[in-house]
Amino acid sequence: MSNAPAPRIHGVVETILYVEDLPRAIAFYTEVLGLSPMTGNPERFQSFDAGQARVLLLFKRGATLETVVTPGGNIPPHDGHGPLHIAFGIGEADYPVWRSRLVAHGVEIISETRWDRGGRSLYFHDPDGNVAELVTPGIWPNY
Amino acid sequence: MSNAPAPRIHGVVETILYVEDLPRAIAFYTEVLGLSPMTGNPERFQSFDAGQARVLLLFKRGATLETVVTPGGNIPPHDGHGPLHIAFGIGEADYPVWRSRLVAHGVEIISETRWDRGGRSLYFHDPDGNVAELVTPGIWPNY
Repeated sequence: MSNAPAPRIHGVVETILYVEDLPRAIAFYTEVLGLSPMTGNPERFQSFDAGQARVLLLFKRGATLETVVTPGGNIPPHDGHGPLHIAFGIGEADYPVWRSRLVAHGVEIISETRWDRGGRSLYFHDPDGNVAELVTPGIWPNY
Repeated sequence: MSNAPAPRIHGVVETILYVEDLPRAIAFYTEVLGLSPMTGNPERFQSFDAGQARVLLLFKRGATLETVVTPGGNIPPHDGHGPLHIAFGIGEADYPVWRSRLVAHGVEIISETRWDRGGRSLYFHDPDGNVAELVTPGIWPNY
């Protein structure tokens, strides 16, 4: 086993949530959270530009249980049951705008939290019950 | 309902995986992937600096089924069953280094994929069977 240090990881590029109703989830993440859809396949998944070269992937639950063969190589199967959890970054000045926006869209804010480092969190559920969070900087040692 | 555009989302800050054996998973993400542990709680979770102000959170499965009350506010319950999926960014020049490193650590590479945009993926399982992927730029319209 090598003791050489690992090359640097450049952040998490793809974060995945699993949903029962793909069109319903796409509508939520597009219309309420304002994410831009990228590529997708209505039978299986939808990708979104989550900002800063980060990708949110919604997979229809149970639709990727088999290896997907592509000309460039295979995509291994995966799947998930939740409620899973995800947090998106927002600017501090946008925190009250987001709170109002969620309420205006009929999204219940299930918790608001203030952290020791000064950051704040807004928690709510997506249509599948996944726990989504909007976080201002000042939560983690590196954020 | 407001028709105002959503404030900008600044990427996904927290990506969560669920594991059965927290120490085993911490060892894997620290020693093999080289992520730096941040705060944690041996009964419940461990956070890692995943680079570029991104956080990987490992939660012990079933240990966050109740709301966590903090002085600053509540953290709603969540949980997950997989195999879930996550992708970390790596540099193109580091791709062969990573392939060798995984093999040297006894990690089976379950697939290698080349994408139309020029990016490449290395797929492998973490100790809980979650499907981890290392991706070079050139996968998505925004990465």
